[in-house]
Amino acid sequence: MADLKTCPPLTRESVIDAHALIKPHIHLTPVLTNTTLSTLASLPRDDPSYPQSLTHLLPSPAPARYAQPTLRLYFKCENFQRIGAFKARGAFHAVARLLAHDPSFSPAAGVVTHSSGNHAQALALAARERRIPAHIVMPDVAPQAKVRATQGYGANVVFSGPTAAERMEVAGRVVEETGARMVPPYDHPDIVLGQGTLGLELTEQVKGLLQGKQDKGLDAIVTPCGGGGMLSGVALSQEGTGVKVFGAEPNHQGADDATRGYHTQERVRGVRTLTIADGLRTELGDVTYPLVCGRERGLVSGMYAVSEAEIRAALRLVLERMKVVVEPSAVVPLAAVLFNEEFRGMVEREAGPEGWDLGVVFSGGNISLEKVAELIAP
Amino acid sequence: MADLKTCPPLTRESVIDAHALIKPHIHLTPVLTNTTLSTLASLPRDDPSYPQSLTHLLPSPAPARYAQPTLRLYFKCENFQRIGAFKARGAFHAVARLLAHDPSFSPAAGVVTHSSGNHAQALALAARERRIPAHIVMPDVAPQAKVRATQGYGANVVFSGPTAAERMEVAGRVVEETGARMVPPYDHPDIVLGQGTLGLELTEQVKGLLQGKQDKGLDAIVTPCGGGGMLSGVALSQEGTGVKVFGAEPNHQGADDATRGYHTQERVRGVRTLTIADGLRTELGDVTYPLVCGRERGLVSGMYAVSEAEIRAALRLVLERMKVVVEPSAVVPLAAVLFNEEFRGMVEREAGPEGWDLGVVFSGGNISLEKVAELIAP
Repeated sequence: MADLKTCPPLTRESVIDAHALIKPHIHLTPVLTNTTLSTLASLPRDDPSYPQSLTHLLPSPAPARYAQPTLRLYFKCENFQRIGAFKARGAFHAVARLLAHDPSFSPAAGVVTHSSGNHAQALALAARERRIPAHIVMPDVAPQAKVRATQGYGANVVFSGPTAAERMEVAGRVVEETGARMVPPYDHPDIVLGQGTLGLELTEQVKGLLQGKQDKGLDAIVTPCGGGGMLSGVALSQEGTGVKVFGAEPNHQGADDATRGYHTQERVRGVRTLTIADGLRTELGDVTYPLVCGRERGLVSGMYAVSEAEIRAALRLVLERMKVVVEPSAVVPLAAVLFNEEFRGMVEREAGPEGWDLGVVFSGGNISLEKVAELIAP
Repeated sequence: MADLKTCPPLTRESVIDAHALIKPHIHLTPVLTNTTLSTLASLPRDDPSYPQSLTHLLPSPAPARYAQPTLRLYFKCENFQRIGAFKARGAFHAVARLLAHDPSFSPAAGVVTHSSGNHAQALALAARERRIPAHIVMPDVAPQAKVRATQGYGANVVFSGPTAAERMEVAGRVVEETGARMVPPYDHPDIVLGQGTLGLELTEQVKGLLQGKQDKGLDAIVTPCGGGGMLSGVALSQEGTGVKVFGAEPNHQGADDATRGYHTQERVRGVRTLTIADGLRTELGDVTYPLVCGRERGLVSGMYAVSEAEIRAALRLVLERMKVVVEPSAVVPLAAVLFNEEFRGMVEREAGPEGWDLGVVFSGGNISLEKVAELIAP
């Protein structure tokens, strides 16, 4: 990875610079609105017109009163990003920085990472497009489809045993043998700054949509939080603008490490969860923890966690009502908006009757249709 | 329906006027590109890198040579339109014309149609938004979900027997009893002009995307063809611009009535097909037949038909690669682009090595997730 000494400072300015670097390589993904979902988000859950199909998600015991926020939602569709997920941003940025700003980087030796997820394909694509080699360490139990997709981008896939230690060991050997540079999936400033670029686009796009209606643009953004790369990048992208940034994560088997860390100010480690939001199983890292949970800069305004059933319900709503294919991790912010009473109560209090124009990030759409069928089964 | 005497002429100018009328009520749906699909469309089918999963679709007997067109695809996503399909355009236009230009129309009496598909919901929505009543005649065997969705838009659903004659009879009775005006699903100038507005947006949007790269914009557009309302409207929207317009339809059980009519110059009637592209089971009508198949004005430059297997394959590709939910009817144009050798050979000849920038219309996304699971099953 780029030597930390060569990294730009973690500021909004650096996100703007990152955007200029990666713009030729990424899609300006569309921002969609949906009347049905904005209406549903603005409905208290005991309203007579609340869909019966969702009442099994009501919290127990029932609160004294269900929140009634007013929300206009704007969905940033990174499921339409190259490789089907926002990870293309960080990978293109990391590779661009190595090539342009790290004299010790050898383009002929290329880059390496260990991932069987979206980061693997993102780095493979970025490397191919910048004409450098990519070595991707994958567990030998990874699905053939993911292996082939990564090879399809021209990467050299190297297999390891299934544990993290085994993957690290193999990656270390690749570095030693080839001189390739490690590009981690989230815990690095170049990755954080790259992912944050979607926040810049989102606020600009919504300003365009609201032109002539109001001037202020978005009030807030809510993003998924796994390792925290995207959340901290988006938070940086809005620092000083007045746009609040919130994070959402699953709570299954302790996956809500960032929410707990945010409230207790103690970093949670050793998370092991099999939440269906498989992109969010990781915990915050050394770079991302202080950005997400640190109180000095106040980059993140709140963290909220949701259940597996709430994620499934949000997934079905997005597929059926918005007609877009998203992976379970991608709908975690929407699940918080629709079903987390704490989040909804906070919006009601802070936004008042005017309500909020709220950006909601769909992080990716890499899910097999067979998996969709399984997840939406009653 | 608006008296034919009060209808504007079937010209590009009238499509532009229609757009001004309906613009406040419809979504400017996004135009998406997808590198994987444009690459696949430009690959001859015997190329070594052609996906093995699609080789079962190869024509038999094999042609002497597979076509090798160069295609850059631009997808107009009417699955993101209000009510999830382009039909909102025609319905809003028909209602706006009745209100503004037909002194004999009684707003208090409202409108009526018979449909269990997208037109039912489109008319219900348009009527609600313009504050007039809507009566929708549906067969008593219609799925509960469709009935509820239509009632959800505030329409009065009236049940009939399942045959066309029974539906017509009940609709006639509603007209007699309420004085409501009939708004047919496609065979009327106001509907044709309304649907055509998507063609105006598509060419403008692609011009924006291509800015700085080339000036000419789209070379051609391909749309689905069922009753022919959208195809003839889009063709009108491009008349005199140099942009060619093609139609695509299923060939299952004789559903390719427009393709046959186009070639033989004889109108095909009595189509009865259960193609999975259920929005395209209808045949051309009195208004649309001459627009689609007539040779004098040359509005449509060609008609192409595809098999059920080709529609399924295109559906899977769009869901998996583009991450958008579409109904089977919506992918019929893409199926022609990818799999119809006649279409592909024509593009190769006409476009030459420069290739074409081709607009491909996704007409709608109203499909249940259970149906998706069924259609993509191996």
